[in-house]
Amino acid sequence: VAYDDINLRVPGPTPVPEQVALSGARPMVNHRGPEFAATVAEVLERLQPFFGIQSEPLLLTGSGTGAQEAAIVNMLSPGDEVLSVTAGVFGERFGAIAEAFGAEVTRVQGEWGKAISAETVAEAVRDNPAIKAVILTHNETSTGVTNDIAQLVAAIRREATGPQPVVLVDGVSSIGAIPFRMDEWDVDVAISGSQKAWMSPPGMAMVGVSERGWAAHAEARMPRFYWDFTKARKNGEKRTMPFTPAVGVVHAMQEALRLMNEEGPENIYTRHAAIGERVRTGLQALGLELFAEPTAASNTVTAVRTPEGIDTSTLIKALRQRRVVVANGQDWLKGSIFRIGHMGWVHERDIDALIVALEATLDESRLEQAV
Amino acid sequence: VAYDDINLRVPGPTPVPEQVALSGARPMVNHRGPEFAATVAEVLERLQPFFGIQSEPLLLTGSGTGAQEAAIVNMLSPGDEVLSVTAGVFGERFGAIAEAFGAEVTRVQGEWGKAISAETVAEAVRDNPAIKAVILTHNETSTGVTNDIAQLVAAIRREATGPQPVVLVDGVSSIGAIPFRMDEWDVDVAISGSQKAWMSPPGMAMVGVSERGWAAHAEARMPRFYWDFTKARKNGEKRTMPFTPAVGVVHAMQEALRLMNEEGPENIYTRHAAIGERVRTGLQALGLELFAEPTAASNTVTAVRTPEGIDTSTLIKALRQRRVVVANGQDWLKGSIFRIGHMGWVHERDIDALIVALEATLDESRLEQAV
Repeated sequence: VAYDDINLRVPGPTPVPEQVALSGARPMVNHRGPEFAATVAEVLERLQPFFGIQSEPLLLTGSGTGAQEAAIVNMLSPGDEVLSVTAGVFGERFGAIAEAFGAEVTRVQGEWGKAISAETVAEAVRDNPAIKAVILTHNETSTGVTNDIAQLVAAIRREATGPQPVVLVDGVSSIGAIPFRMDEWDVDVAISGSQKAWMSPPGMAMVGVSERGWAAHAEARMPRFYWDFTKARKNGEKRTMPFTPAVGVVHAMQEALRLMNEEGPENIYTRHAAIGERVRTGLQALGLELFAEPTAASNTVTAVRTPEGIDTSTLIKALRQRRVVVANGQDWLKGSIFRIGHMGWVHERDIDALIVALEATLDESRLEQAV
Repeated sequence: VAYDDINLRVPGPTPVPEQVALSGARPMVNHRGPEFAATVAEVLERLQPFFGIQSEPLLLTGSGTGAQEAAIVNMLSPGDEVLSVTAGVFGERFGAIAEAFGAEVTRVQGEWGKAISAETVAEAVRDNPAIKAVILTHNETSTGVTNDIAQLVAAIRREATGPQPVVLVDGVSSIGAIPFRMDEWDVDVAISGSQKAWMSPPGMAMVGVSERGWAAHAEARMPRFYWDFTKARKNGEKRTMPFTPAVGVVHAMQEALRLMNEEGPENIYTRHAAIGERVRTGLQALGLELFAEPTAASNTVTAVRTPEGIDTSTLIKALRQRRVVVANGQDWLKGSIFRIGHMGWVHERDIDALIVALEATLDESRLEQAV
């Protein structure tokens, strides 16, 4: 339970434990001084097991969308052919950013609420032999679907006939909560954001880059300055960050990563799997229909179809009265689903409290309808 | 004095009052919900007097450099002619970003440590009649020089023979501490950062845009997504921010702006002027030479020439032992000057403590040299 009594269950920002928030309120320091260097070193080291990489991730100041933009402008040149595999708002956005910066984007549209199949990706790679990059979403926050990145990347690697494309993976709402093995899966760029699985406030993005990714970066000609990976790497080597970082967010993340290290990655993944299951079981017991197909159900975000005859925003407002905050659907799903975040600092009691509040709210709505 | 006992006197991040830091540690909220909307509304309203604008500023998630990039990509198209008036690291950077995104940049180099003269700018505008934009720095953080923006913009407006260029002003280390009158001075884009005059942690940038700026934005074709002003304006109208903002930083800033509102803009400017004077007088009393010419000395940052025979980084380390943190010079000034920040949460006692510590440190260094 949060140190206030709001059960914040949107898919990010997620609740921040009190000791993490207070760590974020530590006195300000010089971002080029030794105290901050020690913080950065610790953060970098503790991030690695969650990304599943041997190299150090890059730290950037911005949101997950900023990290998407960073991935695009650091890996590509205008005119490059890109395969954007999408089945939700965040996959769409990643492709839209590539287009905004001049890439030739071919979209592979999956069905929203379903996992992307390896066969779909394989076929798209066969049909587009000149692609420089493939964009994938690990966990689609808008639909509550987790894709099997290992399998999708294997299909790409198998089908690519020219030079291997770089594979960019949006892990914003997965890494840190769901197993991610960047090196093992042969992913080239993986991004995440402090406010998702990391129990920290928003403001910081983390990016893993493979050797193939660095080679692509050396050739990439899209204009960039703020997001430049070379600057981020050079600063990381000096245990700092480019420009003036969100020092408080880094301080918070330092404490959050200590807690995550104590719990241990495997325990964290197990907890999220159990929580995900508990959310789904609880919702189904209320007679609610889940949006995602069961085999691809995310352990960090669950999208629920709003029951017939109930208005989604009215439901969300009524839930707020019971101190539970959930999110509406996005894009064409706005009004027909609501979304529950359950990543980072989340425990059984938060979910039980959510289900109880939801049950009471639905009963109330149905009573009002009956009147 | 800070709630810890470090006298943080780098030119940003600046010290954060305890109640501001704790406000930043408030429980996390949904950035699309009513609590955050109330915070954003309050922040927007309280920023306006400091920017000197009638319209609402834009709020972005990132550093001051991010805001520089935002200003460039939202105002210009590749190939546009730009006049970059620079006499320091941050002026150089602003021009470099314009170049990175494909502008044709003509640099007007002022002497570092001196104010840019209106005549220099007037001449450059006459010589470059096709310019779309002029980039100015209000307060050059690398040299401790404040430029007379009113006078420089007046020169631009007078000399421009074609359509008026947009004037982009870096006010990162001035707005909120030194009078800034965006509307009155006819500035088109003005940027600032939360970690400078605003007594808040880093992570948020604020941008004022004039009507001429919005017209230029509508024509501007540089690629952009994350920094897009249209998205920022639409979100601001809904009392939120694009993507996932650094909620904690916005919460901190809300409290800082309450304090700033209580003190009042004029009192804040007077305090900074008095503090600036106290810094310069104190340093000169120690026999130290200021880098900036007296008439252009900044009231937020002072650059000091390192005395003959003393190593700058050794001096900075020795000052750290006395719990005072100052910054080295940047670029070619590294090692020959050190810089003192005195903006935001700064009072006479902080400066007096700094001067005392500096005196003791210099005495010590000279003794060691003598040995």
